[in-house]
Amino acid sequence: MATKKPKTIGRLLIIGGAEDPDEDDMKVLPHFVKMCGGKRARIIVCGSPSVEPAKKERTYKRLFEKLGAGEVIDANVFERPDGDNKELLAATKRATGVFFTGGDQLRLTALVAGTQFGECVRHRLWNEGLVVGGTSAGAAAMSSTMMIGGRKEGTVRRADVDLAPGLGYLRDCTIDTHFAQRGRLTRLLTVFSDNPQVLGIGIDENTAVEVQPGKGFTVVGSGAVFVFDGKVTHSNAPDVSDDEVLAVTDVIVHVLPEGYGFDLDEMRPITNKGKKIPKRSPG
Amino acid sequence: MATKKPKTIGRLLIIGGAEDPDEDDMKVLPHFVKMCGGKRARIIVCGSPSVEPAKKERTYKRLFEKLGAGEVIDANVFERPDGDNKELLAATKRATGVFFTGGDQLRLTALVAGTQFGECVRHRLWNEGLVVGGTSAGAAAMSSTMMIGGRKEGTVRRADVDLAPGLGYLRDCTIDTHFAQRGRLTRLLTVFSDNPQVLGIGIDENTAVEVQPGKGFTVVGSGAVFVFDGKVTHSNAPDVSDDEVLAVTDVIVHVLPEGYGFDLDEMRPITNKGKKIPKRSPG
Repeated sequence: MATKKPKTIGRLLIIGGAEDPDEDDMKVLPHFVKMCGGKRARIIVCGSPSVEPAKKERTYKRLFEKLGAGEVIDANVFERPDGDNKELLAATKRATGVFFTGGDQLRLTALVAGTQFGECVRHRLWNEGLVVGGTSAGAAAMSSTMMIGGRKEGTVRRADVDLAPGLGYLRDCTIDTHFAQRGRLTRLLTVFSDNPQVLGIGIDENTAVEVQPGKGFTVVGSGAVFVFDGKVTHSNAPDVSDDEVLAVTDVIVHVLPEGYGFDLDEMRPITNKGKKIPKRSPG
Repeated sequence: MATKKPKTIGRLLIIGGAEDPDEDDMKVLPHFVKMCGGKRARIIVCGSPSVEPAKKERTYKRLFEKLGAGEVIDANVFERPDGDNKELLAATKRATGVFFTGGDQLRLTALVAGTQFGECVRHRLWNEGLVVGGTSAGAAAMSSTMMIGGRKEGTVRRADVDLAPGLGYLRDCTIDTHFAQRGRLTRLLTVFSDNPQVLGIGIDENTAVEVQPGKGFTVVGSGAVFVFDGKVTHSNAPDVSDDEVLAVTDVIVHVLPEGYGFDLDEMRPITNKGKKIPKRSPG
């Protein structure tokens, strides 16, 4: 009887958007190439979230090659049947990393989720150590509940936020990107006032979380990551209509710069010196 | 020996800005007139924060009269010596309320603070039951540390936020206005990462807190009030420069809609049914 190969869970790099490929101080995208194996990396770039997917894929292909990736392949999933393309599937089976570009997260789930390509990425992330990166829309789509829009002038009301099911690479969690830059506190608060078991993660531009699914994450880049622990002491969510303002109390927020981390099991932040921060003492 | 008159502490109405005087569903400004005594109200309108103070004073005079205020007087403090005007001082001594308009909070403190008018407002607030209202700049100025600006694209870094001493009507506190509408989470987080004893209060547009200084406040209006209890478990503030991202952990946030309140003594939120919400149980 053949011994079964042990499962290796991969890693995610969830990027808050906007890293400028021309800037010298680029930190996050070089980190992705390194995570994928550097010169041994084989990266699939998937531009499906974008309305100009081929152009996006070309841009990132050039960039990842410049950053030293061994091989970069464009996914070319422009319509849903493209996700069942045999060559793409073969390439995905031998890839070390997959990267989802920015654009519209609904385009990504609509075009890719459930195709053979989509299922292969998910399977290899959970079982074969695949690295999956995404920026902006490609980042937002990784959570189980996906933020797809919010009213700019809105506040903490369900009517001001639009959600859809995401790819679910990071479970029990909602991700928002461009966080401080676009002032997105209220839409994240709205989500978990509805379901406090959900963790909210707001990621600044030029900033990312490197995630070991089910274990924890660390922060990379020049901005901050905002973690919202939604285990509130009170919420009026069951009693109010969509356009009424929600009440939520005792939301816990952590602001984490580069080098800081978060333990997803114990739900506690970790300093840049590796020290787990104890809970607030009662009283 | 004459018996000393007992002190009566006044009330504040701190408004997040933007209430449209033409809308039928105006809630906050009618509430201010009622707090000042309705048809027995004598209100001083101070437009000093504005670059067009006379125009602002006329607008609010007309509005407060329309809302039933007995008497409305414009302050006309356009330059600092105007704050020592005898007629204004006499009117302030018999006023039931003072209202500071929007504009620039630095103009307000620079023109009014420390003048005889400014000192009379402060004295009568703390001793003679004066009601003091303010919107936008006129609201921001009421805290002890006053937010005067923040970089739109910034994150939680001192370099992204500008502060100045405020009028100090609400002590140990920083107020920010237009809160959800302008996405101002990060600038409030920055302030108390520096000094966790400070309470941060972010007020939405068309929304206000009615404050009993030293005791507590309740929410009035159509948006939310965000209370940030900054007693964090960890902060890197002492160790980082102005342009580095701050780390802060276990900030507690309460989102409070109309009818909800906050006990400033016990630092606990109160539901719209008057129930004080107990602290999170440890564990």
